[in-house]
Amino acid sequence: MTNREIMQRHFVQELELLKDNIVKMGSVTEQAIESAITAVLERRADLAQAVIDRDGRINAFEIENDDAVVDLLALQQPVATDLRFIVAALKINNDLERIGDHAVNIAESARECAACPPVDILPEIPRMAQIARMMLHDAIDGFIRGDAALCRGVLTNDDIIDDLNRDAVKKLVETIRRDVSTIDQSLELIRISRNLERVADLATNIAEEVIFMAEARVVKHRFGG
Amino acid sequence: MTNREIMQRHFVQELELLKDNIVKMGSVTEQAIESAITAVLERRADLAQAVIDRDGRINAFEIENDDAVVDLLALQQPVATDLRFIVAALKINNDLERIGDHAVNIAESARECAACPPVDILPEIPRMAQIARMMLHDAIDGFIRGDAALCRGVLTNDDIIDDLNRDAVKKLVETIRRDVSTIDQSLELIRISRNLERVADLATNIAEEVIFMAEARVVKHRFGG
Repeated sequence: MTNREIMQRHFVQELELLKDNIVKMGSVTEQAIESAITAVLERRADLAQAVIDRDGRINAFEIENDDAVVDLLALQQPVATDLRFIVAALKINNDLERIGDHAVNIAESARECAACPPVDILPEIPRMAQIARMMLHDAIDGFIRGDAALCRGVLTNDDIIDDLNRDAVKKLVETIRRDVSTIDQSLELIRISRNLERVADLATNIAEEVIFMAEARVVKHRFGG
Repeated sequence: MTNREIMQRHFVQELELLKDNIVKMGSVTEQAIESAITAVLERRADLAQAVIDRDGRINAFEIENDDAVVDLLALQQPVATDLRFIVAALKINNDLERIGDHAVNIAESARECAACPPVDILPEIPRMAQIARMMLHDAIDGFIRGDAALCRGVLTNDDIIDDLNRDAVKKLVETIRRDVSTIDQSLELIRISRNLERVADLATNIAEEVIFMAEARVVKHRFGG
């Protein structure tokens, strides 16, 4: 093999490694959202704490993937398709790390809620969590498979989440108005609802990146979001 | 001039253009935060609306800068320092666009507040806005000048903002408890406070990127944030 061929092979391997890492990071992040919501629903401070403690893993993924991207760019001048993939990976990496932060916010609120007298959890909260996780899953899946159609589905869900968030916040404000003694838990639930809405926004960002990558045109700031 | 020299000159020009654009985008974003907070303090729905309408400019900057980065990477294999600068620019571009979104959130809340009976605005709110804007300004300045020391100063301010946000939220919850009729305005002020805290977080992200770029080591997830 020539030097050039060796470098080419090394490049392909590094690219596969980056893909694998993004998939793993996506799955850890999805898991964090699921555990944080379970902690809210089942009033489990221990599970909430575990989500907070495990955020370091997501942060470590981000740093590792950033380094991999810089290495890939330095290694050789990637051709158009690879270059677009690598730039998308860098942005998706950042989005996933932020989703991890929102999981931590939800877990912090879950811990607060567990320490307060129980209140009814609105059905909007688990519903939003379920949709947001599905959006995230599809967006990452779409990224790996370069599947723009799958990612278009993600964009349509963002409006559903926005409506659910609006409904949830409205109901919670009414709850406080009726009984101000529920203020602490209700404010935590508002915070949880808004964080889920942000997770859906970030999943939407990822989907937009994938569509851009696959079709090389900007959908961002055109579809709602 | 050889072809290589022509491409090198073109590369340098493109890089300068990207720098200029990031500075302009930073200044437009700073202005958006300032106008949004003025809209809160002076109960000006018109100014709030102007901030919302002008967000398209920030989004347009993001798309333009993203394209410039892809062009720069495709144009020629940048050397280590340039490569790190370009990757940092991509991330900072993304952070600035998100700060623009937070300015929009604050402006939306300002519009809601202007439609409600007036309440006292906590001194924490303009104080946070002032510090967050300064952090953003220093972070962008540090980026352009490659000044890691300036950016270290940004990191220390993040804790001050976190404390101010905590105090503001606590006081606003007490206000609702005392007089539940203030709930709408108080919840908007809580949202404003949390958005300012997020602006400071993003300015901190930018500062961390600059330090990483300047010193090629990861400060992220070590300093608070």
